[in-house]
Amino acid sequence: MALGEFELIERYFTRPVRRAALGVGDDCALLQLRPGMQLATSTDLLIEGRHFLSTVAPERLGHKALAVNLSDLAACGAEPLGFTLSLALPVADAAWLERFSQGLFALADAHGCELVGGDTTRGPLAVNVSIFGEVPTGQALLRSGARTGDDVYVSGTLGDARLALEAFRGGLVLPGDAFQRVRVALEQPQPRVALGLALRGLATSAIDVSDGLAGDLAHVLRRSGVGATLRLDALPRSEVLTAQPETWQRQCLLSGGDDYELLFTAPAHRRDAVQAAAESACVPVSRIGAIEPEPGLRLVDGRGHPVEWQLSGFDHFRT
Amino acid sequence: MALGEFELIERYFTRPVRRAALGVGDDCALLQLRPGMQLATSTDLLIEGRHFLSTVAPERLGHKALAVNLSDLAACGAEPLGFTLSLALPVADAAWLERFSQGLFALADAHGCELVGGDTTRGPLAVNVSIFGEVPTGQALLRSGARTGDDVYVSGTLGDARLALEAFRGGLVLPGDAFQRVRVALEQPQPRVALGLALRGLATSAIDVSDGLAGDLAHVLRRSGVGATLRLDALPRSEVLTAQPETWQRQCLLSGGDDYELLFTAPAHRRDAVQAAAESACVPVSRIGAIEPEPGLRLVDGRGHPVEWQLSGFDHFRT
Repeated sequence: MALGEFELIERYFTRPVRRAALGVGDDCALLQLRPGMQLATSTDLLIEGRHFLSTVAPERLGHKALAVNLSDLAACGAEPLGFTLSLALPVADAAWLERFSQGLFALADAHGCELVGGDTTRGPLAVNVSIFGEVPTGQALLRSGARTGDDVYVSGTLGDARLALEAFRGGLVLPGDAFQRVRVALEQPQPRVALGLALRGLATSAIDVSDGLAGDLAHVLRRSGVGATLRLDALPRSEVLTAQPETWQRQCLLSGGDDYELLFTAPAHRRDAVQAAAESACVPVSRIGAIEPEPGLRLVDGRGHPVEWQLSGFDHFRT
Repeated sequence: MALGEFELIERYFTRPVRRAALGVGDDCALLQLRPGMQLATSTDLLIEGRHFLSTVAPERLGHKALAVNLSDLAACGAEPLGFTLSLALPVADAAWLERFSQGLFALADAHGCELVGGDTTRGPLAVNVSIFGEVPTGQALLRSGARTGDDVYVSGTLGDARLALEAFRGGLVLPGDAFQRVRVALEQPQPRVALGLALRGLATSAIDVSDGLAGDLAHVLRRSGVGATLRLDALPRSEVLTAQPETWQRQCLLSGGDDYELLFTAPAHRRDAVQAAAESACVPVSRIGAIEPEPGLRLVDGRGHPVEWQLSGFDHFRT
């Protein structure tokens, strides 16, 4: 069924706004921030074949396009307000749009984050979301605040998304149920918004793990002017990943990408508060290392012995 | 010369921020609105072959990607603050990026609008800008405020961008200097930001002309619950367009698209104030018709006689 542009927007992407002063349908959307709040904004562009496979279910793509942006707000400790959606579609397919918008709005509703505007056009399948949140002025979690003596933490588990990608590519074979579990990690990541909010005033730095743990931690270390040592055996992994060979595990944990977990630092004397924050957000967090004055990232095994490894974060123009 | 993703961002798209609290390089950008202000935001996705031709100079593409978004702020009477840029590139070409960023930043600087974040990836050439501005709460110009008895105005001239597109497509031949003039209208539109600001408290409704005068005016009429009559001979056109056959003129004026002029309404008793606003913004505005209670859009010739015509606004999924 072929739809026109305005019919498409009206049918699938126009809903009454609740918090926004003005939503879809004018030249601009209007949003009111609360007094004392700063606007936090981020944007992510997902391209077919690069950020998602053509086999992905439309509702999962709708979910993921918003999830990766909510994850950026989470990493700043910002509260979601709204988002805009730019969509390039080869054809205006009603069944596809129905499922895509269901996945998108299910996650949006779960986070009280409303669609306030956008743009649709014909073109190679691409989805760009720009997201808006608010954070009390001066309280945003930044990449630059890690200090010597801080602990390093990560939420959830790492590496499943990469494992799923390798299974799709044919690089390994996973039993059916294991494949389905890691596939959800890749296609339907859960942004850690509640955790980000709970870490305000507690975490000294934060970033979301999108390009791989080692590469994303390197951003924090460089901006903070510090180094770190991570304990390989402390890196949290799922049962599915634990069943893989050690070299696979290491690659997926350190350079996996697409994890959308929060990587953060906090002072060592606030360990109880960090665990309380994790419990309040219903997300497990693992203490995986420590910040040190010497620049660079070091890795040790369970006995504290150095582990040789090569950093390989994801780079869209080198892979 | 091949560049990595982070090197590309660092070299071409990272500049010190002036107004933003935090710019490129963290999970989110942070912006502070002034007290009493609302956030106005819009987003536009430009796809090669659909919104721009592969022959466009990179600096003009950089200009246009931002211009079309500034035009949305203008249509709301909002003051530009900042923008994010999502860029999908087939290759990371240093010479192309140098020119693209020059065009982008020249326009950004002219409007005090800074790049605060973005995303780059490999993919079919596509540019998405999301823009942020501020407007005093309750003072944004909307599409819904046109009232019976208001005058209808448009800024600048209409139709040159469409004429250029037709010339590119081979549908007509223009002398060299005429072609260069209309080509600039297509590739380097000037957003009417100063006019939008000057129309606050004066215009009863506004929209920017992106899909064609008739189609965009129809949005205003529908949202305002009114109709209008336009005088065909009052529609402002360039010397180049005036030299074309009458049927071409009408098509380009009414259904041209890509004009990025402001179409607005204002009470008839405020004609002097409208002209003063136009002068203060250094943009000519033309009074082209009147708002009436009867729904629909009517067209009359220089003697007031009805002109038959068929609305054909631009639709990305029908063309």
